[in-house]
Amino acid sequence: MTQNIYDNAGFFARYSQLRRSVDGLDGAPEWPAIRSMLPDLRGSRVVDLGCGFGWFCRFARGAGAAKVLGLDVSANMLARASETTHDDAITYRQADLETLDLPAGAFDFAYSALTLHYLNNLAALFATIHRALLPGGHFVFSAEHPLYTEPGPDYLDEGPRTTDWLAEGVIKQHRTLATYLNLLIGVGFTIGRVEEWGASREQIAAHPEWKIDHRRPSFLLVSAARQANPASHARRDLSR
Amino acid sequence: MTQNIYDNAGFFARYSQLRRSVDGLDGAPEWPAIRSMLPDLRGSRVVDLGCGFGWFCRFARGAGAAKVLGLDVSANMLARASETTHDDAITYRQADLETLDLPAGAFDFAYSALTLHYLNNLAALFATIHRALLPGGHFVFSAEHPLYTEPGPDYLDEGPRTTDWLAEGVIKQHRTLATYLNLLIGVGFTIGRVEEWGASREQIAAHPEWKIDHRRPSFLLVSAARQANPASHARRDLSR
Repeated sequence: MTQNIYDNAGFFARYSQLRRSVDGLDGAPEWPAIRSMLPDLRGSRVVDLGCGFGWFCRFARGAGAAKVLGLDVSANMLARASETTHDDAITYRQADLETLDLPAGAFDFAYSALTLHYLNNLAALFATIHRALLPGGHFVFSAEHPLYTEPGPDYLDEGPRTTDWLAEGVIKQHRTLATYLNLLIGVGFTIGRVEEWGASREQIAAHPEWKIDHRRPSFLLVSAARQANPASHARRDLSR
Repeated sequence: MTQNIYDNAGFFARYSQLRRSVDGLDGAPEWPAIRSMLPDLRGSRVVDLGCGFGWFCRFARGAGAAKVLGLDVSANMLARASETTHDDAITYRQADLETLDLPAGAFDFAYSALTLHYLNNLAALFATIHRALLPGGHFVFSAEHPLYTEPGPDYLDEGPRTTDWLAEGVIKQHRTLATYLNLLIGVGFTIGRVEEWGASREQIAAHPEWKIDHRRPSFLLVSAARQANPASHARRDLSR
C-alpha cells in the first residue's frame, strides 16, 4: 500500500493551510489549464481518484454531472469532504488506488488531481480506469511533473524520491513523461492533449512567496480518451 | 528558410567524421530503439525528411520498401547520398522542409531523423506529412530531446537556441515535449509511442569519449499514426 501521508497529523494540518486547501480549485494556479481540458460534464457519471476535500466532486456536480464518486485513501480528507458536502449525488469512499476495483463501463469521466505520483503501480490503475469508462469516455489527470520530482541529472532513473514537503520523508514516485504516456497507450487510451504546466513569468513575479526562480514545469496535465468502439461506427453507418 | 548548416564546409567536414556518418545507422546509439518502433516496411512507399547521406533510405529498401523518396535541404548531403546509392527505387531531392509540398496519400510511411529541431514551422510540416500518408500510415521521428536543447531552468521558454556544435552559431529550435505531441495530435495524428532516449549507465561507462555524466535524455523518439478512416471499419463490418 502507498504511504498514506495525508493521515499524518502534522502533514494534514500544514496541508489544510495551503491556498488550494482553503480556496479550493480557484486557489490552484494550474486549475484554469485543467478546466480547459475537461469534457462537457452534463449528465455524466464521474469518478475522482484522490478526491481530497471533494472540491472537484462538488465542481463536477455544479457543471451538471449526474453522479459523482470521490475516492481517497485518507480518512482525514474524506471526513472533511463529507462535512462540507450536502449533495446526495456525491458519494465518498475510502479506497487504496493501488488495488482499486471499479465496475466496467460505469463512468463517462475519470479525474485525478496530484495523486498519481504517490502510486507504485500505475499500469494496473490505468487499466482499471480504462475498463471503468464507457467507449468515448475521457480521463483527465494532473500529476507532479517529472522535472519537479527529479530536476537533477537523473531524469531517466525512475523510482521513489523522498522529500520533506510539509512533513519529513514524503515518498513520491518519479516516472518520465514518456512512461506516463506509454502506460496510458498500453492499456488502450488515446492521448488527447499533454500540458507541461509551469507558472508564467508574470505569476512568478506576482508571487514571491512561491520562491520559484525557474521556468521548469511543475505539473503534468494529460487528457486521454477511451476510443469509441469501431463497431459503433459500423452501427451508425448501417442506420443511415 | 532554416539555417542550412550542413552546407557549411567546416561543419560538413566535421559532421562527416562522426561515427554515425561513417558507420551509418549502426553507428547511432539510438538506432535500436528507433528500429523497434518501425512498422513492417515491405511493399511500402517511404519518404525520409532530412535523409542526409541516405542511410535510412537504403535500409528501408533492404527491409522491403517498394519506393523511397529522400529529401534534404543540403546539397552536400544529397551529393554524398547519390554517390553511395545504386538503386532506381530510391530518389533523392533537395527540399526546404519549411515549405514542403507532398502529394496527398502518396506514402505509407514517413521518417525523420534528427532534423525537426532545426525547423521553425513544425505545424505546417506535420500537416503536410499527415496529408501525404494514407489512412493507417505511420510517422516515426527522432529529434534532439528538449532537455538536451535546453537542460537549464528555462525548459518552458520555447524558441531558438544557439550552440557551437561542430561549427559556431548552429541554431536549433527548442520546443517542449508537450508541444511536439500536441502539434501531432492537432493535425490528426494518434500518438503510438514516445521514447525519451538516453544512454544507459553501461553505455556511458563504455564510451568515456561521450563525456556524459548524467542520465538526462538525448533524443526524443515518437511513433504516430494517421488513423484508418472510420468509414473503412464500417465497410469491413458490412462485408462480414
